[in-house]
Amino acid sequence: MDNKISVSCARRMQAFVETLQDTICDALEELDGGARFKTDEWVRPEGGGGRTRVIEEGRVFEKGGVNTSAVFGDLPEPIARNFGVQETTFFATGLSLVLHPRSPFVPAVHANFRYFALGEDLEAPVDAWFGGGADLTPCYPALEDTQHFHRVWKTVCDRHAVADYYRFKEKCDAYFFLPHRQETRGVGGIFYDYMREDQEAAFAFSQDAGQSFLEAYVPLVQSNISKPYGTHERAYQALRRGRYVEFNLVYDRGTRFGLETNGRIESILMSLPPSVQWKYDVRYPAGSSEAKARWFFQPRDWITLDASEAPL
Amino acid sequence: MDNKISVSCARRMQAFVETLQDTICDALEELDGGARFKTDEWVRPEGGGGRTRVIEEGRVFEKGGVNTSAVFGDLPEPIARNFGVQETTFFATGLSLVLHPRSPFVPAVHANFRYFALGEDLEAPVDAWFGGGADLTPCYPALEDTQHFHRVWKTVCDRHAVADYYRFKEKCDAYFFLPHRQETRGVGGIFYDYMREDQEAAFAFSQDAGQSFLEAYVPLVQSNISKPYGTHERAYQALRRGRYVEFNLVYDRGTRFGLETNGRIESILMSLPPSVQWKYDVRYPAGSSEAKARWFFQPRDWITLDASEAPL
Repeated sequence: MDNKISVSCARRMQAFVETLQDTICDALEELDGGARFKTDEWVRPEGGGGRTRVIEEGRVFEKGGVNTSAVFGDLPEPIARNFGVQETTFFATGLSLVLHPRSPFVPAVHANFRYFALGEDLEAPVDAWFGGGADLTPCYPALEDTQHFHRVWKTVCDRHAVADYYRFKEKCDAYFFLPHRQETRGVGGIFYDYMREDQEAAFAFSQDAGQSFLEAYVPLVQSNISKPYGTHERAYQALRRGRYVEFNLVYDRGTRFGLETNGRIESILMSLPPSVQWKYDVRYPAGSSEAKARWFFQPRDWITLDASEAPL
Repeated sequence: MDNKISVSCARRMQAFVETLQDTICDALEELDGGARFKTDEWVRPEGGGGRTRVIEEGRVFEKGGVNTSAVFGDLPEPIARNFGVQETTFFATGLSLVLHPRSPFVPAVHANFRYFALGEDLEAPVDAWFGGGADLTPCYPALEDTQHFHRVWKTVCDRHAVADYYRFKEKCDAYFFLPHRQETRGVGGIFYDYMREDQEAAFAFSQDAGQSFLEAYVPLVQSNISKPYGTHERAYQALRRGRYVEFNLVYDRGTRFGLETNGRIESILMSLPPSVQWKYDVRYPAGSSEAKARWFFQPRDWITLDASEAPL
């Protein structure tokens, strides 16, 4: 690994995600046409800090956050143990976003792009890698939306030798799975981690992916935002959001990592949806839109799928 | 340990919790004056089963469940590892209840009473113990309610040589604590586990505690149910319920145990409140009822506390 290059990766990745944060927030504000993002800058006592940007009670977005951070210092003990490393110093920077639209017909979305380095010297990290991904969580999934989302990520992956759409898509399906519900959180996307062989190539891919987020997601807002809905659809959305909470609090590594390492709670739990319901043993009749949606919550090869295979 | 006595503990405890379930449900239905409990009997494929009784959309109770189960079979591997035992056969029976009232002024409550035995032969278990407890989760805590609840449990404990109110209260405070929020889930109660020295005495205490639940809780419904509230109080309640979800999904051993061991999901997650909200970084002004409530979410010796110490 060329350490001189890796140096610049740390600071260049930080600069990249900070710029991307504003680009994405500007676009989402324009899309929302109502609420604006508020900004909280915070300092991490042990080193570094971040910028949390949150939108609430918007026309399109009931709640959403686009956060960046760049933190460094002593590696928290549980993570050092998890990594199985002797190194006790780290640097991490990244962008993490979650959007919970108000309309049950507009999918929720999550994405993050991050860089992690181990070692005292950013100029010569002992180890360093990129990770990230994006995944879509519709309540009422539509095959064409799902295909659009996946096609954007496949196209991005196809542009980079370090990226493999099918491998990243499978990682995403495996990660965003709720064993106790035997279903995926949504319709997946891509997920990659520990991309470390060629740092410059990994950085280039991460940049391309980050810059493709709006192309993957914004059309799904535009095509669904005008669909009418009522209390029935909102109640179902509140139940589906319950599954989202179950995933994030029970399984999500980032959330649990944040809780265990005394992270900034409001930024970590910003990912949780507003207006959630848990009711006992809700069942939707066969043939209803809600029952049909379940077909989508299993891993499938969306891109090659024939439309006739999806439930009408 | 007298094995003949322990035998009967298993089946007598099962009979006790099944009777207690109906006693409690009858009293709560009368208190509610609106909704009735629905009953689901379920069978556990690996052995045993249970009876889930759920009330929803009541006049008093927005959601609640009073469940019993008696399950047996091979000890799931994660639990055997956790216990550090060679034994692979178990029997467990118990009652577990959670009530989420509609009014933000009526406290939520949780209680459970259980018996666990290890070994092939219920007539001669290799090991067996009782556990349980009850704890109160108000949104707007009142000192007199908190004192009433704790006094009932202290009185019960004082009747039994095997029980120690202060030890059980401290266990409860330690257990129902959210490290990431640095606060207790509610105002506590009692919590005991691995009570195994004198099985008959442990069973007598568990029965007394179970039979005291209504005395501990019902007066708190009666004294608060008529207090008027509006959207402000309901929004605060929805946020407090978010903390309840965070506790149950992130920390609660019973919930995580159930999820890891392929338990009946609808019965396990019955404990989660209806109508929950997560908003970003909500703060209530100093002096507001909501800000004052935080004083209660730290462990305190409620029984000896002087009323002048509580925030007005």
